Amino acid sequence: MKSDLINKLKSTNAVIGVVGLGYVGLPLTLRYCEVGYRVVGFDIDQGKVDTLKRGESYIEHISAADIKRAVAGRFEPTSDFSRAREVDALILCVPTPLDRYREPDLSFVLDTTDALVPHLHENMVISLESTTYPGTTDEELKPRIETRGLKVGKNVYLVFSPEREDPGNQSFSTRTIPKVCGGHTPDCLEVGLALYGSVIDRVVPVSSTRAAELTKLLENIHRSVNIGLVNEMKMVADRMGIDIHEVIRAAATKPFGFVPYYPGPGIGGHCIPIDPFYLTWKAREYGMHTRFIELAGEINSSMPDYVIAKVADGLNAKKKSVNGSKVLVLGIAYKKNVDDMRESPSVFLMEKLRDLGAEVAYSDPHIPVFPKMRQHSFALSSVALSAESLKKFDCVLLATDHDKFDYDLIKTHAPLLVDCRGKYCEGAAHIVKA
Amino acid sequence: MKSDLINKLKSTNAVIGVVGLGYVGLPLTLRYCEVGYRVVGFDIDQGKVDTLKRGESYIEHISAADIKRAVAGRFEPTSDFSRAREVDALILCVPTPLDRYREPDLSFVLDTTDALVPHLHENMVISLESTTYPGTTDEELKPRIETRGLKVGKNVYLVFSPEREDPGNQSFSTRTIPKVCGGHTPDCLEVGLALYGSVIDRVVPVSSTRAAELTKLLENIHRSVNIGLVNEMKMVADRMGIDIHEVIRAAATKPFGFVPYYPGPGIGGHCIPIDPFYLTWKAREYGMHTRFIELAGEINSSMPDYVIAKVADGLNAKKKSVNGSKVLVLGIAYKKNVDDMRESPSVFLMEKLRDLGAEVAYSDPHIPVFPKMRQHSFALSSVALSAESLKKFDCVLLATDHDKFDYDLIKTHAPLLVDCRGKYCEGAAHIVKA
Repeated sequence: MKSDLINKLKSTNAVIGVVGLGYVGLPLTLRYCEVGYRVVGFDIDQGKVDTLKRGESYIEHISAADIKRAVAGRFEPTSDFSRAREVDALILCVPTPLDRYREPDLSFVLDTTDALVPHLHENMVISLESTTYPGTTDEELKPRIETRGLKVGKNVYLVFSPEREDPGNQSFSTRTIPKVCGGHTPDCLEVGLALYGSVIDRVVPVSSTRAAELTKLLENIHRSVNIGLVNEMKMVADRMGIDIHEVIRAAATKPFGFVPYYPGPGIGGHCIPIDPFYLTWKAREYGMHTRFIELAGEINSSMPDYVIAKVADGLNAKKKSVNGSKVLVLGIAYKKNVDDMRESPSVFLMEKLRDLGAEVAYSDPHIPVFPKMRQHSFALSSVALSAESLKKFDCVLLATDHDKFDYDLIKTHAPLLVDCRGKYCEGAAHIVKA
Repeated sequence: MKSDLINKLKSTNAVIGVVGLGYVGLPLTLRYCEVGYRVVGFDIDQGKVDTLKRGESYIEHISAADIKRAVAGRFEPTSDFSRAREVDALILCVPTPLDRYREPDLSFVLDTTDALVPHLHENMVISLESTTYPGTTDEELKPRIETRGLKVGKNVYLVFSPEREDPGNQSFSTRTIPKVCGGHTPDCLEVGLALYGSVIDRVVPVSSTRAAELTKLLENIHRSVNIGLVNEMKMVADRMGIDIHEVIRAAATKPFGFVPYYPGPGIGGHCIPIDPFYLTWKAREYGMHTRFIELAGEINSSMPDYVIAKVADGLNAKKKSVNGSKVLVLGIAYKKNVDDMRESPSVFLMEKLRDLGAEVAYSDPHIPVFPKMRQHSFALSSVALSAESLKKFDCVLLATDHDKFDYDLIKTHAPLLVDCRGKYCEGAAHIVKA
């Protein structure tokens, strides 16, 4: 019965299943535990499960203490998907990357769903949180769920409710970020609102799973396009001898109608470089183009080359080639003050510099050792910044502007400094804006 | 002496000359008068000067009472440019349109400057407020000013300080909108800050006139591109059967990283459709393209055709052609709650419909009679909305969503309603989203 399920979800008697214990699933799990729900946390990675069981964290901004408290209490991490039988809700928080041809790779969503299907049962709700194209929930999840005789909207409920996690954001948490939710049917939506209503301050209903899917894409398309725009403006302003960072800060004093975005050496993270192309792909089915998305992708992905050209220009002015020069990259996380390296443009910069023959090193207070990544590898540790260490490099490249850097020290002792972040406004002779 | 001029400007003993008494110059004039300055207001249009002298207004949101008070006091409107001899400051607020080939038309700025040059004198400041490309102040104004032996930065001062007027904005006024100012030299900037410091709450200095020029362009480029993006998203969402207005409103619940812009039947006003192309033109001199600006221009200017196609679809479903149908356009101002028709997309819609053979009428509570426009003409008055009058039309096209419209009345009695503004969320059979 729908009303029984809703009542259970509204009390803390419901058992919540969270699938995928990463940047999205783990904070959500902790939030459910905090309110008093029992949570079964699923992950295919036994290593993650074991780490959590030991009360340790693998994400910088999530404290081990919080995990320890949760696993001592009502949080059970497991890699055994048959335990989906025990839960009243399954919340899917698995990655949705792009494949090599920049097309949606739904394999994590679909493989997870297939692994769960044998253990689904009546009177439960399934929520997909992974960013994806409009239609995924209806076209891909619903038929899979219904293979075992369940009927969505009748005895099992299906919603799409996009995650809005923002690692490192000090102002908002899982609880205080409003959450959009769309149901396959009005009954599904009602159950979805009950699922999230006790743990999220404000749940925003929309009329369909497709509207919810597009909502999340639009948020990230907006960011991608606005960053693409200022990156293009940067290149034009550079050529005109105008500091685009000064211009953006001045424009930001307009109290309406303008919102500042800042240029950089490219875009990173799991969302902005990837999500927009989910819509591009789906739009083709309708004979439509998404030209802003494609232009933003083109400009943003060209930024590392632009930065490398600035490095080469700066070195060239000193009669040096990139080949053989020692280059120190400052900041290898994809954004400031976090340890997250997913899709980080710094890594592309390091690879390009290495390929050109530079001796590459890095410094990042959040990443002491260059980690193993799927497609990238550097046997490097973070260089401690000092007058001595900075002077040894031919070029210092500020890629990610962590607050922990000593910017005066860097400015004073870097023989050549390429600044991708507009930290240095007054033009000093050895500073190159990129 | 610079310091004498600065002291005079900071007191209210300075005489301020405002050139161009339109949407920008007139409110600025009134603000100077309010603080206690004497203002000589210049306009080449003797009709405007006479209207002001009679204490009447030609702009809806500027009250005749305010003008009456000003002209009774310290405001002298004139078409006699030789009176520039009397003033300590000249603030240029003249239009900067595009020509037929979408290239900058600086004729108002340059003709005005040429008319003023014989009357310029030492110890004055000249400020250009008209939106224009980076370099205009340095490359065009400075040489003209210096033809009579004056030396910018020595005995005459030159700044660029872009206007940020927003007609109809209830939250901000001339005084409370921060004002960016860049000087040709640091001394020029210092004088510029004194010029505006007594009448504007916050003046934001930037390092050059070029930075100030680009600041204003960036503000409007940002708007143009964001509106272009949602217009493209609207067309994609339409095809997918998703209501983009619902999606934008849901995305707007994200408390960071997203700012809502809404689609419409095209863009209007004096700024957004025009200003960005000033940068496009100037960028060509540097061998650069401004692809976001051009894409936004293309998509935004295609929207009227998109809307017309929706009108034709709606009529076609009723076995009617546009040719011979009676179409009522609601809202002909370029944005809601104002009487400003500059570059209004509604006018393009009316012309296209007329060209296709429709019988066109309009209703706009802010514009009782269709005014004489440079390039457009309709011998029409605003239709009063009622059950009776609405029923007479084959199609009602909501183009500008003034608050004064009775939306329930419209929805109930329009036989076919094409909604360009997302006012009607619940799909009724006779409502077409456009």
